[in-house]
Amino acid sequence: MTVTADMLDTYPKDLGGIDRAALIACIDACLECAQACTACADACLSEDMVAELVTCIRTNLDCADVCAATGRVLSRHTGYDANLTRAVLEACAAACKACGDECGSHAEMHEHCRICAEACRRCEQACRTLIAALG
Amino acid sequence: MTVTADMLDTYPKDLGGIDRAALIACIDACLECAQACTACADACLSEDMVAELVTCIRTNLDCADVCAATGRVLSRHTGYDANLTRAVLEACAAACKACGDECGSHAEMHEHCRICAEACRRCEQACRTLIAALG
Amino acid sequence: MTVTADMLDTYPKDLGGIDRAALIACIDACLECAQACTACADACLSEDMVAELVTCIRTNLDCADVCAATGRVLSRHTGYDANLTRAVLEACAAACKACGDECGSHAEMHEHCRICAEACRRCEQACRTLIAALG
Amino acid sequence: MTVTADMLDTYPKDLGGIDRAALIACIDACLECAQACTACADACLSEDMVAELVTCIRTNLDCADVCAATGRVLSRHTGYDANLTRAVLEACAAACKACGDECGSHAEMHEHCRICAEACRRCEQACRTLIAALG
Repeated sequence: MTVTADMLDTYPKDLGGIDRAALIACIDACLECAQACTACADACLSEDMVAELVTCIRTNLDCADVCAATGRVLSRHTGYDANLTRAVLEACAAACKACGDECGSHAEMHEHCRICAEACRRCEQACRTLIAALG
Repeated sequence: MTVTADMLDTYPKDLGGIDRAALIACIDACLECAQACTACADACLSEDMVAELVTCIRTNLDCADVCAATGRVLSRHTGYDANLTRAVLEACAAACKACGDECGSHAEMHEHCRICAEACRRCEQACRTLIAALG
Repeated sequence: MTVTADMLDTYPKDLGGIDRAALIACIDACLECAQACTACADACLSEDMVAELVTCIRTNLDCADVCAATGRVLSRHTGYDANLTRAVLEACAAACKACGDECGSHAEMHEHCRICAEACRRCEQACRTLIAALG
Repeated sequence: MTVTADMLDTYPKDLGGIDRAALIACIDACLECAQACTACADACLSEDMVAELVTCIRTNLDCADVCAATGRVLSRHTGYDANLTRAVLEACAAACKACGDECGSHAEMHEHCRICAEACRRCEQACRTLIAALG
């Protein structure tokens, strides 16, 4: 979102050596993935075969919660703590991997799972890129 | 975000007479506003004059929480309940109004407050448009 | 929770004429209801008859999100805004009413719905009591 | 909270070999810590010396977000994934450690920080106990 970059640009203090592009991409990927997972859980609920999608729904809900928390932590720069950022990004990458795999496994049957799996994979990759950039 | 529209397009059941454009705009405005408010609270924390910005920070935090919850409620369509949607949208519009006014009052001094105030006003308007569309 | 009262007791500024007992009860009811709704959605997912519980799951998820946001807003006192508090409490009462009714309608069949419906009704009542106390 | 145990007791399927007492204790510790951290951030905002507490506020906000997400993930049992649970618990323990240390460093000056630091340490310990119980 444009606003993510705009807010980062107007942060009043030094951001340290952070990779700004990787940070912006990861915040946006987290918010996108959280939305996709919330909507995918609901779309799965509306499928006639919902009984076969319960693991997918649960993974969607976890991934939405972890991505939302990660997007918030990454949006803060005051009193930055690399260890905490890294632990949160690892949890987020794990949630996105689990949800991307689960949604991906029935992506051919449900278009919402295909789109959600792609959002999960983008977010997992954005988390791993940012972890690498943290050094 | 593109994904918001894509997820709505792939919802497997009928969406009723919902105004799709207004719904997508409102979900995206909620997520954008939540990010702007989270980042603005943090930017205010880093200002030397933080002691004069404590009301702004508090309003930012409330607005971020209410917008995030509203974005989630709006991303669900199964078992839709217009009364609940309306009450949540009213709370979100109130939070955005309060935060837009507060941030707007020092928009000339802090660029992050100016950007955040605009996000709040867009979100308040998007909520009101969707409330009107609910009939 | 004991911590809710302890934190309120140590707030460093004046709390205005707030009804402390009603505030503490409402914060705790919101957190309890959010937990019950999150767990009830998951328990419904694990029922063999999940296909008949999709409206319940959706209502649970909404109620959990709105209660969590409300619990946070109520935990803040700096720069207090009665209009925003009231709007958020109204939305929370509406979410709890919807979920209490839905869970209550199959409380005899599912014990988790019975317990969750009670948590919803306690929270709805706590919200209404606090709204009345706001004057 | 009593409701946490009641909801776990009524989960309709097998919970595997999970340590129920450790799970309940960890869910409740997460919710308690999230509330304490939200309230502590707000109490810090109201201190005259807020400018010296900005790192504490930021750490409080992160810890509240991570604890809230962790409490939700732990409240779900359907389609359980030990790897994801472990990664989320590690992030939560890291957030609680950071916040417990920060709040603990001015616990003698601010009673709200003392109470919050204790909630953080209880939650960190509950996370580590549950991680150990996961095997």
